[in-house]
Amino acid sequence: MVPNDNDIKQLVHEWAQAIRDGNMDGILARHTSDIVVFDVPMPLQNIGLDAYRKTWELFFRYSPRGEGSFELIDLKILSGDYVAFCYALLQIGGREPECRLTLGLQKINDKWYIVHEHHSAPFAIPEEK
Amino acid sequence: MVPNDNDIKQLVHEWAQAIRDGNMDGILARHTSDIVVFDVPMPLQNIGLDAYRKTWELFFRYSPRGEGSFELIDLKILSGDYVAFCYALLQIGGREPECRLTLGLQKINDKWYIVHEHHSAPFAIPEEK
Repeated sequence: MVPNDNDIKQLVHEWAQAIRDGNMDGILARHTSDIVVFDVPMPLQNIGLDAYRKTWELFFRYSPRGEGSFELIDLKILSGDYVAFCYALLQIGGREPECRLTLGLQKINDKWYIVHEHHSAPFAIPEEK
Repeated sequence: MVPNDNDIKQLVHEWAQAIRDGNMDGILARHTSDIVVFDVPMPLQNIGLDAYRKTWELFFRYSPRGEGSFELIDLKILSGDYVAFCYALLQIGGREPECRLTLGLQKINDKWYIVHEHHSAPFAIPEEK
């Protein structure tokens, strides 16, 4: 594991902790102003920090906070010099993992920032007759 | 745009063309054997090239081929020395864009490979009473 992996691991775990705490300043602390977010619910995409904040306001309307409310499972990080991405399964609301997360990161002025988030849940396939 | 962006742009567009052509060898040509895929339908994740191939066999069972069958909209690429990611909206089956795509890439022996794919469609939010 190279040093950038450790920096990103810490950033991502602090972000997840801020979500479990319902701490909006912490959630938004390491995102760029032009972040592009693909979230579980509609719309197709959310562009910019204000839109990103609203995705969490919606999340907190339906989901509890605290331990188990937003846990990363099998977090895998790949980092280069100035670009990195990571992905994990997501355990939400204490249930079995049923969502997936991919984050895209960029190093700007020697600090890592999240510039892209993709959250989703898979659809059930209709049974064939 | 740095040279890596051009390499990745070409790789991604060739991959999308292989999908439109239903050319399975082309689809799988630039993926690592341990690829982790989060697909639109269940399961939660697909690990490895064999599982990845099956996601396309399923796709071709429901989707037509040809122009408009798998088009990348607003492709954005961020590349570093050995790690890159990109994302786009997806137009499938000639319909309006209703899916999203994020790819994670790694440069191995001077060639880029896709090591992670995340495809999804957003859920509708139930109307509040």
